[in-house]
Amino acid sequence: MSMSTTPPSGFRDFLPQTQAARAKAIEAVSRVYRSFGFSEIGTTCVEELGVLLGKAGAENEKLIFKILKRGEKLELSQGTDELADLGLRFELTLSLARYYVRHQSVLPHPFKVFNMGPVWRAERAQKGRYREFWQCDVDMIGSDHWGCEIEVIQAMVSAYQELGLGCPTVLVNDRTLIAAVFDAAAVPAEKRVEAMILLDKLDKLPEDRVLADMTALVGPEAAKSIRERIVSAEGDPERLKSIAPQALAKLDRILKALAGVFGERDKFKLAPSLMRGLDYYTGPVFEFKFPGLAGSVGGGGRYDGLIGKFSGRSVPACGGSIGLERLMLLLESKQAASAGGPQVCVTVFAEELRERSLKCATVLRKAGFSVDVYPGARPLRDQFKYADARGAAFAVVLGPDEAASGKVKVKDLKSGQEWLEDEGSAARALRSRLA
Amino acid sequence: MSMSTTPPSGFRDFLPQTQAARAKAIEAVSRVYRSFGFSEIGTTCVEELGVLLGKAGAENEKLIFKILKRGEKLELSQGTDELADLGLRFELTLSLARYYVRHQSVLPHPFKVFNMGPVWRAERAQKGRYREFWQCDVDMIGSDHWGCEIEVIQAMVSAYQELGLGCPTVLVNDRTLIAAVFDAAAVPAEKRVEAMILLDKLDKLPEDRVLADMTALVGPEAAKSIRERIVSAEGDPERLKSIAPQALAKLDRILKALAGVFGERDKFKLAPSLMRGLDYYTGPVFEFKFPGLAGSVGGGGRYDGLIGKFSGRSVPACGGSIGLERLMLLLESKQAASAGGPQVCVTVFAEELRERSLKCATVLRKAGFSVDVYPGARPLRDQFKYADARGAAFAVVLGPDEAASGKVKVKDLKSGQEWLEDEGSAARALRSRLA
Repeated sequence: MSMSTTPPSGFRDFLPQTQAARAKAIEAVSRVYRSFGFSEIGTTCVEELGVLLGKAGAENEKLIFKILKRGEKLELSQGTDELADLGLRFELTLSLARYYVRHQSVLPHPFKVFNMGPVWRAERAQKGRYREFWQCDVDMIGSDHWGCEIEVIQAMVSAYQELGLGCPTVLVNDRTLIAAVFDAAAVPAEKRVEAMILLDKLDKLPEDRVLADMTALVGPEAAKSIRERIVSAEGDPERLKSIAPQALAKLDRILKALAGVFGERDKFKLAPSLMRGLDYYTGPVFEFKFPGLAGSVGGGGRYDGLIGKFSGRSVPACGGSIGLERLMLLLESKQAASAGGPQVCVTVFAEELRERSLKCATVLRKAGFSVDVYPGARPLRDQFKYADARGAAFAVVLGPDEAASGKVKVKDLKSGQEWLEDEGSAARALRSRLA
Repeated sequence: MSMSTTPPSGFRDFLPQTQAARAKAIEAVSRVYRSFGFSEIGTTCVEELGVLLGKAGAENEKLIFKILKRGEKLELSQGTDELADLGLRFELTLSLARYYVRHQSVLPHPFKVFNMGPVWRAERAQKGRYREFWQCDVDMIGSDHWGCEIEVIQAMVSAYQELGLGCPTVLVNDRTLIAAVFDAAAVPAEKRVEAMILLDKLDKLPEDRVLADMTALVGPEAAKSIRERIVSAEGDPERLKSIAPQALAKLDRILKALAGVFGERDKFKLAPSLMRGLDYYTGPVFEFKFPGLAGSVGGGGRYDGLIGKFSGRSVPACGGSIGLERLMLLLESKQAASAGGPQVCVTVFAEELRERSLKCATVLRKAGFSVDVYPGARPLRDQFKYADARGAAFAVVLGPDEAASGKVKVKDLKSGQEWLEDEGSAARALRSRLA
């Protein structure tokens, strides 16, 4: 008779306290994005499989949760490998590109946009990696000016600050810089993706190991040249100046402007080994790090080629994504998360007084409190227990004496102290005690 | 090269203005639910197919978007009809029941909970009926007291009020009342579901037509008895008192308490023909209606049997759901929706003054404005055009003269009027003009 109550592997339920912290974080990020003039949009969780595959390519196809065809279409496909027609989105940027091309005639130009919601990946679930997780994306479409990078990064950094996390370390790099390094080292075109994958491992593996692999891939001279320009340049950007002066000047402007706005010069850094994914980025890329948490908590970059896949016409774009799951890890470690229960529980003394209790709760809610009314008919003692278990600070009692005299009895559930308040001024009194 | 940009049939993109209105509504409903002491939880969008099918039964199986198995599991299933292992949730209550049984040892008792998010149904898409849509559920689990019904209905009505829609008409009925009417009319058990389906059509079809069908189903005498007790009782509940005194007394208490709290006696009504779905409700059911919008905008009821499907142990529960799509229809018709763009655009006079503009925007954001900084490098005229197209009320200009004197030039984009403000007091001046 009974059914399993565990969600599928890699999927999570959220208990009230966790959900309250998530909702608070989502709300804060939205508020900050909105304060920068980004407009929220909504895109579908489900996309045509062709849209998802067109972007993902064969290697990413395994990431996609595919949705079975229905009815007659399914019957006609039985025995073929075309059993699915739809799929769950595995990121938000792809849906944004589709959305932009579809709606561009009615959208402002450039288009400042944010989009938040769940995405799904059919990866093997493991600690810290889920199959359903949230992204908080912010993008600017239609401009190739580096002002976009500043705006996107500034909004994201401000979101971390709003959540009490302070300013992250912001690492920036540029795809054209990496290309110039490969040009200077004469790395053949067909080896560049692999070389980038190797460089991407620099923050996970020892430098020697990465360089040995690089030597095996491109030969000792090219590896030495890459090493000098990328690894050593972390501390000395001058080594890059001769080969990519323009890209370097652009990154310098972005870094200087951001350091000026936030007044934290040492938090904004050029990182020539930063790769940040491998497929659609075409210009500056960036990543955010906080001490004590390995890996990044968000990042992004310029992707001037993606939208053209839908429109056939290239449209410049740049954007970033805050990963909610990493963000929540940070917030938990800062104990910035807070509870989700009511602040006040109004008890029900007797059935004939329930309406009085309901009215009293309504007044307290209008004053801004989260208020619970005991739903059943149990002795006051049990109602106090319930209020305490829900994490309320106060219980309010409205017995016949109080009701007759326009008073309420308030019980501080921590100290056990009880006292009478005028019903009209109870909200003010509770607020001053909570503060 | 170019790909389709239309979302799948029945799925929708939301433009910024629509999304802003949706986000505002979702936020308002959450705020009200929370103010009643309901705690938000998060459940997974994807459930094991067994969980979804266990509840839905064969007739609802077609509603489910099923997710294809992956890798080896898929290969082993080729040619069978067990190609899927997961599915998208088609409602939130089922996930809540699973969640409650899984986590009940750490949840308060009774559990006051809300859950909002998208659900998916593989129905044929048609005007006003979508395949991806949002529900805003609120529930109380673990108590069979009618105080739960009051609390749930009061929270939902307050949400409509918070959104500026006023108090809806609230219709209530009780499954035990319907059962008593069928008992009194001696309707055989096997015909009761069909009889309920017929009665459910009373608000769509003419009464005569429904009664003719009822006569064909249960015979003239039973049909007459049902008619007297259900149709005629809408105006005269006394006709029901003799056969279901307890159910009627309970509904009367719920209606009186709610009418008292909201001070609108004529909005809370007994509706003996209200059926409200057919499967899991066991006690009181309720529905909300607004003039000018056919059908309901939300509703719910008591479902004391559902949770037992997971735990094997019956747990009383009652809850309701506000359908976001219907809610948005109402809000649009009230023109209560509002835009999502920035209020102020700060222009960039020249590259060397960009940092000044960024700082000015930061000050305005801290004062609570939504502020855009022009991202590119275009003449001021174009920047004003952009600001206007984004719906901003003001543009701010920081030229070399203004920067040197600590002033900003403000342009009212509607009137075209321009004037100087001290940079420090600009926020206050803009606020008083917006008000």
